Amino acid sequence: MNPSGMIEPPKSLLKALNVPKKLLMGPGPSNCSPRVLHSLSQQVIGHLHQECLQIMDEIKEGLQYVFQTRNRLTLAVSATGHAGMEAVMCNLIEPGDIVLVTVNGIWGERAADMAARYGAVVHKVEKPLGESFSISEIEQALRKFHPSLLFVVQGESSTGVFQRCCQLGPLCHKYGCLLAIDTVASLGGVQFYADRWEVDVVYTGSQKVLGAPPGLAPISFSPRAEAKIRGRRTPVKVFYLDMTLLGDYWGCFGNPRIYHHTVPVTLLYGLREGLAQLAEEGLQKYWERHKNCSIQLHEGITKLGLDFFVKDPTSRLPTVTAISLPPHIDGRAVSRYAMERYGLEIAGGLGPTVGKIMRIGLMGYNATPENVSLTLAVLKEALAHATASRL
Amino acid sequence: MNPSGMIEPPKSLLKALNVPKKLLMGPGPSNCSPRVLHSLSQQVIGHLHQECLQIMDEIKEGLQYVFQTRNRLTLAVSATGHAGMEAVMCNLIEPGDIVLVTVNGIWGERAADMAARYGAVVHKVEKPLGESFSISEIEQALRKFHPSLLFVVQGESSTGVFQRCCQLGPLCHKYGCLLAIDTVASLGGVQFYADRWEVDVVYTGSQKVLGAPPGLAPISFSPRAEAKIRGRRTPVKVFYLDMTLLGDYWGCFGNPRIYHHTVPVTLLYGLREGLAQLAEEGLQKYWERHKNCSIQLHEGITKLGLDFFVKDPTSRLPTVTAISLPPHIDGRAVSRYAMERYGLEIAGGLGPTVGKIMRIGLMGYNATPENVSLTLAVLKEALAHATASRL
Repeated sequence: MNPSGMIEPPKSLLKALNVPKKLLMGPGPSNCSPRVLHSLSQQVIGHLHQECLQIMDEIKEGLQYVFQTRNRLTLAVSATGHAGMEAVMCNLIEPGDIVLVTVNGIWGERAADMAARYGAVVHKVEKPLGESFSISEIEQALRKFHPSLLFVVQGESSTGVFQRCCQLGPLCHKYGCLLAIDTVASLGGVQFYADRWEVDVVYTGSQKVLGAPPGLAPISFSPRAEAKIRGRRTPVKVFYLDMTLLGDYWGCFGNPRIYHHTVPVTLLYGLREGLAQLAEEGLQKYWERHKNCSIQLHEGITKLGLDFFVKDPTSRLPTVTAISLPPHIDGRAVSRYAMERYGLEIAGGLGPTVGKIMRIGLMGYNATPENVSLTLAVLKEALAHATASRL
Repeated sequence: MNPSGMIEPPKSLLKALNVPKKLLMGPGPSNCSPRVLHSLSQQVIGHLHQECLQIMDEIKEGLQYVFQTRNRLTLAVSATGHAGMEAVMCNLIEPGDIVLVTVNGIWGERAADMAARYGAVVHKVEKPLGESFSISEIEQALRKFHPSLLFVVQGESSTGVFQRCCQLGPLCHKYGCLLAIDTVASLGGVQFYADRWEVDVVYTGSQKVLGAPPGLAPISFSPRAEAKIRGRRTPVKVFYLDMTLLGDYWGCFGNPRIYHHTVPVTLLYGLREGLAQLAEEGLQKYWERHKNCSIQLHEGITKLGLDFFVKDPTSRLPTVTAISLPPHIDGRAVSRYAMERYGLEIAGGLGPTVGKIMRIGLMGYNATPENVSLTLAVLKEALAHATASRL
């Protein structure tokens, strides 16, 4: 306090901002391209200006492309990926609803937590970490619990598990259930067809394969999901995530735009540019690039004599590869070496996999053969270093 | 659809991004300084990297300074200003709680809506648009309704009303009530002392006087409010806004950091730089600059023969000035002329004031004598144009 009784300005803010350059080869966020970064420094414009609304329209079209959907209720929620999960739960759940969640890692656990907060009766179907669900396991649970919503994670980034989703839509609908899929760590890096697969709600994060900075959660609701929202008996708890209001702001229902909140417009610039780069490359080529990089990475990992945490090769996510920690290796030492020496991120586990695995991400702008070669070389050196320092 | 059955990439994304330069003299967002804009294009880093955590710490200190508080539970919510209001409601309300909301514009209405969604018994104390509340009006309502939470807006941007708040804390505490203040349109532009005034929760938006882009909602809870959250009988509905979890991520409680969500790190860069510029200038000078600009603006408005929507000069907000629309003038024509001819934003009303007023904002980087002169000159010309085109 100074004599005036004011709390004084913090000294830490009188120093310059320090943002080191890093190569983010973990499970996200990933690096942004120069084009995306440049867009972020464009001046702010108003949240109802024509140019802003046009960027929102372009983002909507880009998201319909990457989700492969014609859903009109497709937009980006103004918050990080998690808010996508929250938007699913608060819009599609009313107290007493039965929700079935597949749990084989942290994201299923979190979805179950969120659903319970909104008053759902939550049932879990569980698998050991590192394994995916068979269609018959899911059907059995649908038959047993009669849920109104099934929640599945396509890319369980805490374990590197890929969940096959292409048959789940018709299955859910046979049992009168809606299908929600989390694609935060997978969308753009593996095939996804919202309409063809009859997905009722899908969301992702801007900061992973789409190559934009964190802060937006793209999401899309099918007409079936939209009808469920419109038929609610109770209001959506969260005004900020109420899809009927957001849909009006994003011009999804053909009505005049209605102000809802002030969109984070610089993040919209970045997402728009990330989607534009994806559209220019083409979605199939984008998927292929991620697949090819993951093949290169997986071959390299095998050559290094390391084990995959996910035993079944068809259940391995191309965008996040989990490597079992070799005996007596401290994963933190590996990550620290890679970061301190090369400014390169190799991640450890998350939630239930902490201390068990290392995770390497291949996402968007970072998914290149050169980055894979570099990451493998650094990994090899870091492992040798961690082994030596253990001796 | 092409022969492969794929939905094709949208043509709109194959064009270049179009972001015009505008001078935003409306009620927010306002323009960012070159320093803030530059920071936004720095590369993404991880949400648990040491450098990111340090930036979060610096932001926390900067917010404590601008809120004038030592509250440990001070941080920026990863969503726009509205989410600050939502965070107040979902953390401090349990079903059946009595909430008192002062309503003299759109923000009180919205707060009442949000509170009701979380199961509160909501009472309103209302005033005509353009008027503020006296302390005795508020005390009367506190005595009548026995609320556990009072919600007040310091800067009602839809009407340009400034609400005096300095005596409300002790008054609320006398009646066993917590005090929540919305400072989205005012913080940094007028005096605010969270601790001295015994405010229990205060929030703002990054995109107004703080001079950062939209997408973050700075918020601070007093120890009293924190105790209320810790004593809840029911879980906070919204995982994304649960302050006990967010406080752990932001290192507010002295515990090791726990991952909660991926912070929008480029927005943190911008807010950090906005706060740094504020700290360099000094909070008192920052307040003074806004006050001086508003005096210059108000003198100019009087010279133009225009009427203020807020009749009582002591209830006029320095950051948002509302001008009554002269008879037979179409406010949209004024705004359109200023924007098309000069790329300068003069806003209309919002919610209940649509068609009744024009609004001029003086916020952060934009609050300069030069911008006031320019805005007055453009306003004069635009009014002449709107008058002529009416004839």
